[in-house]
Amino acid sequence: MNLADINIVLVNTTHAGNIGATARAMKTMGLKNLVLAAPLAKFPSADATVRAAGADSVLANAVVVQSLAAAVANCSVVIGTGAEERRRSLQRLTARQGAEFIFQHAATEKIAIVFGTERSGMSNSELALCQRQIVIPTASEYTSLNLAAAVQVITYELFMAAWAAKQIAPPLRVAQDRLATTQELTDFYLHLEHTLIQLNFIRPAVDKKIMPRLQRLYNRSCLEMREINLLRGILNAAHTTPLA
Amino acid sequence: MNLADINIVLVNTTHAGNIGATARAMKTMGLKNLVLAAPLAKFPSADATVRAAGADSVLANAVVVQSLAAAVANCSVVIGTGAEERRRSLQRLTARQGAEFIFQHAATEKIAIVFGTERSGMSNSELALCQRQIVIPTASEYTSLNLAAAVQVITYELFMAAWAAKQIAPPLRVAQDRLATTQELTDFYLHLEHTLIQLNFIRPAVDKKIMPRLQRLYNRSCLEMREINLLRGILNAAHTTPLA
Repeated sequence: MNLADINIVLVNTTHAGNIGATARAMKTMGLKNLVLAAPLAKFPSADATVRAAGADSVLANAVVVQSLAAAVANCSVVIGTGAEERRRSLQRLTARQGAEFIFQHAATEKIAIVFGTERSGMSNSELALCQRQIVIPTASEYTSLNLAAAVQVITYELFMAAWAAKQIAPPLRVAQDRLATTQELTDFYLHLEHTLIQLNFIRPAVDKKIMPRLQRLYNRSCLEMREINLLRGILNAAHTTPLA
Repeated sequence: MNLADINIVLVNTTHAGNIGATARAMKTMGLKNLVLAAPLAKFPSADATVRAAGADSVLANAVVVQSLAAAVANCSVVIGTGAEERRRSLQRLTARQGAEFIFQHAATEKIAIVFGTERSGMSNSELALCQRQIVIPTASEYTSLNLAAAVQVITYELFMAAWAAKQIAPPLRVAQDRLATTQELTDFYLHLEHTLIQLNFIRPAVDKKIMPRLQRLYNRSCLEMREINLLRGILNAAHTTPLA
């Protein structure tokens, strides 16, 4: 899926700030094609530019058209959005399902994702132009995402779908150093046990549960070799420095 | 997972509008606890209220505190956020992985998710209070999500995790005991530092990196209260039992 080829279409947007915030949301997820269908807000505008932050390239390339019909005329897959069920016959997908659907068609089709006006979302006649409707799951008490926030969530799901498809591993833990081997861990635990026996903290024949508990604790951390050296340094200090 | 019990903590927020937009993002995903740590923006403010839209209940209940340390003192799982790798050994999770991690602990622990200031995110010393860092995957060219947009994506992933789990399995890790709070961890670290100074392992004016490294190691473990008691027992033994 080439995210950069997907069009984000905003219909009758009222607040210029939301246009800028949409541009920013798009750019963080690798999208660049913004289409403004009959915007009610002034555009270009300073409010949009401020909220776009570093995404002014998306604003600069934004296309203004007279209607949603004009905006999606050259698209073969048109996805509506909205919290509400307006057209009962239109298939509704969660944001995650929608991203999968788009992903399946992105290699061969020109795709538009459409967002309605802030106050009331997409109208029935606008949804009539769409093949699917994406609904972002929300708490039942309050379903009203900000326009740019909705764009952020849906483009994020697109990015995640593309990412998963590339099979790129997400950035897990970045160790500063290699992790300790089992042998190195075992040597550390023996050192620790030896010290705790000398401190009379462990009575060898009696206290059977302390070392297993400490091992669980440290094993959870996935200790690095440098950390093992640090901990063993502390144990050595405890041996050489008498405390009152 | 009871989403409503999770605290969203904003540190040094500059723009009142972002506080309002955060409240709105939270409410759409079923969260209600907003904590403002040393906000730079005026609060309450008309800008926040306008952007909160129907989520003014979240603003009305927001708590203002003097520092991040105060905000998370009573929390046992503290999750940082940010685009950048500040602390190389802090385990980083994607938003989706982070939601799973939080889900595993939410039934038993008090959880905070922390968002840094708009311009520069969380500082190193702020991340030192965290057990994990959530990073929202983005396009490499432009990684800067708006603050409230980041809150929207992460709380959306929490909502999706809770939603998926309604049909599915119980939490993975079964803690033997409740986790330590940030205050209890802080007390342990002070005890440990005091002991290491007495052992001449740390020279207070010189060895600046040892305590941060030990904190990272133990923070990764998500220490249980019983484990804190065990470790402090060892420190006490080191004080009372002279070693040759």
